[in-house]
Amino acid sequence: MSLFAARVSVYSCAEAGPRFGIRRRKGWGMGTVDSKAIANAVRTQRATMDALFEQLRADGLDEPGVSRDPYGPGEQRAHASVTRFAEAMGLEIGHDAGANLYMTLPGRDRGAPVLVIGSHLDSVPHGGNYDGAAGVLAGLAVVGALKALGVMPRCDIVVMGIRAEESVWFQVSYIGSRSSLGTLPDGALDVRRVDTGRTLAEHIAECGGDPAALLERKRHFDPAQIATYLELHIEQAPSLIEAHRSAAVCTGIPGNFRFPDARIEGSHDHVGLPRRFRRDAATAGAAFAMALDELWADYDARGIPMACTLGRFHTDPAAHGLTIVPGAFHFSLDVRAYDPDVLAGLETKVAAIVARIEQERGVQFHLGPTARAAVGPVDPRVKKGLEDAAAAQGIPVLHIGSPASHDGAAFAAEGVPIGMVFVRNANGSHNPHEAMTIDDFLDGTVVMAHWIVQGWT
Amino acid sequence: MSLFAARVSVYSCAEAGPRFGIRRRKGWGMGTVDSKAIANAVRTQRATMDALFEQLRADGLDEPGVSRDPYGPGEQRAHASVTRFAEAMGLEIGHDAGANLYMTLPGRDRGAPVLVIGSHLDSVPHGGNYDGAAGVLAGLAVVGALKALGVMPRCDIVVMGIRAEESVWFQVSYIGSRSSLGTLPDGALDVRRVDTGRTLAEHIAECGGDPAALLERKRHFDPAQIATYLELHIEQAPSLIEAHRSAAVCTGIPGNFRFPDARIEGSHDHVGLPRRFRRDAATAGAAFAMALDELWADYDARGIPMACTLGRFHTDPAAHGLTIVPGAFHFSLDVRAYDPDVLAGLETKVAAIVARIEQERGVQFHLGPTARAAVGPVDPRVKKGLEDAAAAQGIPVLHIGSPASHDGAAFAAEGVPIGMVFVRNANGSHNPHEAMTIDDFLDGTVVMAHWIVQGWT
Repeated sequence: MSLFAARVSVYSCAEAGPRFGIRRRKGWGMGTVDSKAIANAVRTQRATMDALFEQLRADGLDEPGVSRDPYGPGEQRAHASVTRFAEAMGLEIGHDAGANLYMTLPGRDRGAPVLVIGSHLDSVPHGGNYDGAAGVLAGLAVVGALKALGVMPRCDIVVMGIRAEESVWFQVSYIGSRSSLGTLPDGALDVRRVDTGRTLAEHIAECGGDPAALLERKRHFDPAQIATYLELHIEQAPSLIEAHRSAAVCTGIPGNFRFPDARIEGSHDHVGLPRRFRRDAATAGAAFAMALDELWADYDARGIPMACTLGRFHTDPAAHGLTIVPGAFHFSLDVRAYDPDVLAGLETKVAAIVARIEQERGVQFHLGPTARAAVGPVDPRVKKGLEDAAAAQGIPVLHIGSPASHDGAAFAAEGVPIGMVFVRNANGSHNPHEAMTIDDFLDGTVVMAHWIVQGWT
Repeated sequence: MSLFAARVSVYSCAEAGPRFGIRRRKGWGMGTVDSKAIANAVRTQRATMDALFEQLRADGLDEPGVSRDPYGPGEQRAHASVTRFAEAMGLEIGHDAGANLYMTLPGRDRGAPVLVIGSHLDSVPHGGNYDGAAGVLAGLAVVGALKALGVMPRCDIVVMGIRAEESVWFQVSYIGSRSSLGTLPDGALDVRRVDTGRTLAEHIAECGGDPAALLERKRHFDPAQIATYLELHIEQAPSLIEAHRSAAVCTGIPGNFRFPDARIEGSHDHVGLPRRFRRDAATAGAAFAMALDELWADYDARGIPMACTLGRFHTDPAAHGLTIVPGAFHFSLDVRAYDPDVLAGLETKVAAIVARIEQERGVQFHLGPTARAAVGPVDPRVKKGLEDAAAAQGIPVLHIGSPASHDGAAFAAEGVPIGMVFVRNANGSHNPHEAMTIDDFLDGTVVMAHWIVQGWT
């Protein structure tokens, strides 16, 4: 904490100028800024960003890894640290009914549609330090670069610290971003966090939000007032590792359908029961998993991107045992794809698999509520702009579909043009071993900063 | 409790004679007893046995079902009720270092090898009322019938209330019966009960047993001093239900090998990770389950009896979630068969399946300790005797291999001739819905009583 405070202090004097300095430097203009200067303005923030990442790690430490639980102590500490940092930079701080954090660098035309650079500050339980947080820090680093370059944007740039993106906790997608847009789905406020058992409404109120306003669909952003939503995120697959590239430009965000709380009902029986008499719920679960795995292998072979995960997949801990045929089995399913038709087709195929296994194994599936999130298309102009920026900076980037869902999809669903940059990351995400280097983070941020300096100042 | 006490009191006066009556009736002899009289002597105990079953249900009540936890309060209450009942019948009460219960009807030659009629008094958690207990009560009903008939056996008949047969608790097979025979496996006393976390030694000591004596392999029975071990048990599959028969004579007890605590190690990853990068431990578990299921289907098709159960089959509750690819998976496996060669062949095949899945899915299996129990062959003369007895009584019986393991296998392993009778039971066992009728119980008991009157008096 003390190390971090000291570094922010150095930063706020030496690099960002005195607090509230932005408002005094009215003279910022567009001008021509060369690529090298942009890259330099980003990369000189290396130590500062490193310190802020380490502060966030300390805030969320929950060995193994970090837990920034949404609308709980872990996420709150992250918000507090980021807020202190943004205040030290002189940004305007704001919040909405969903307790999202807005850190605004004012532009020349304060009434113009804004550029949002955002990501989420929560994490999965015992996750890594970068999934989400890297995008918020990238926004701050871009703003820091603009200030260092002495260029003022033509519109406000709003760095957004989004709440509750990790749906493992409340099992609802995009809670923070959809709160911001007034598009939280019906019933979401009554959903309980899987660990605390308390409702989303209670958690939001505890963190200074206003669930009553959310219920009335009060929104912070009119989508028409967002010119573009931009997000940097660590890659959650090893495509960049394999390709020896530091960054990628996103070609699309998958939609999904989910059964967060499904179960299979069979019959608890004695371990010696012959096969023909069994209604084994666990073996039915295994048959379901293998059918999905074969389905996915077939789509892979045909080059149609999708993914399919049984995250929770378990016999009933209150009833299972070495000598009992399992009569109950529980699972969660997440199926995702980039094309709405593919997604709809998959949902039909999953239903057919369920019906077949029920028939073959004398069990009954209870799929429970289905959650759905629409596909998030990336805006072609934003994508092209980021690709050109990378080329101008000499940073060779991949072009990949996002393996994961991201808040950008919630903005895209409201018609906001979106774009995303991925940063190389070893060991996947949603685990304590995420490994993004600060060099790669800065590469991705340079691409974003270049595009913004060229197009938004 | 009061109802039960009243009924025992009626029984002990009206049917069993005054307490210690057996010792005074020295004049019991063999004589010829007709089939009808034997059946009648068993069936007049209907109300008494019903009351004792209901007492045991009340003792073990743990909705849903009953829990007679071995070397714990549930089993202790069952032992206390059965002991009170046997004392009221005037039987000699004894215990051994494993806290097994012996209820002895003295025979004419008290030095001759004894006939043991036994089963276990523990149950699985939330199990039914009959798995185990029915065999102990059948022994008491046989002894009651001999007394009602006024015939004295030529050797002692020892009704045995065996401890801790249900290996779901300590995950060791035949704890009570092997304690009695001094064949408890090395290390068994250090095994911890899965729910209490305390060792078998601690539990045994708490129930009045002597773990130090067990460690020195002190035995209650020299196997040469057991003429025959006989056990009645509910059928744990619906073969009798299907065949509309009340009872069956057992043709063999399966042996097994078990992995009580196996796990699969993969990699926890983000839900969006493409298929080719995944090391999904749950899908590997599903592939394992399906391979075993196919193996079993093949053995079934070839008419080779076996069974295979993944009783615990689950992702890690501390790490799993909707949006996390499971990196850890846990399971227990029980594989059983009636032929030692088949069993050995299955163990080799399971190892090959494990190796193939490790290779195909980039995961690692940690099978943990292997527990094994030998096949328990039924003595052909005992089997023939029971079949003849059933024929003489006009009770048409099936001839079936035991689906389950039974204490008899521990006696068979020491060279004791064993035999078993199964009683029809709906809804399987190891669940709260076991459903044995008292009529079927009495049919099975009549078969045993007939054979004993004909051969042992």
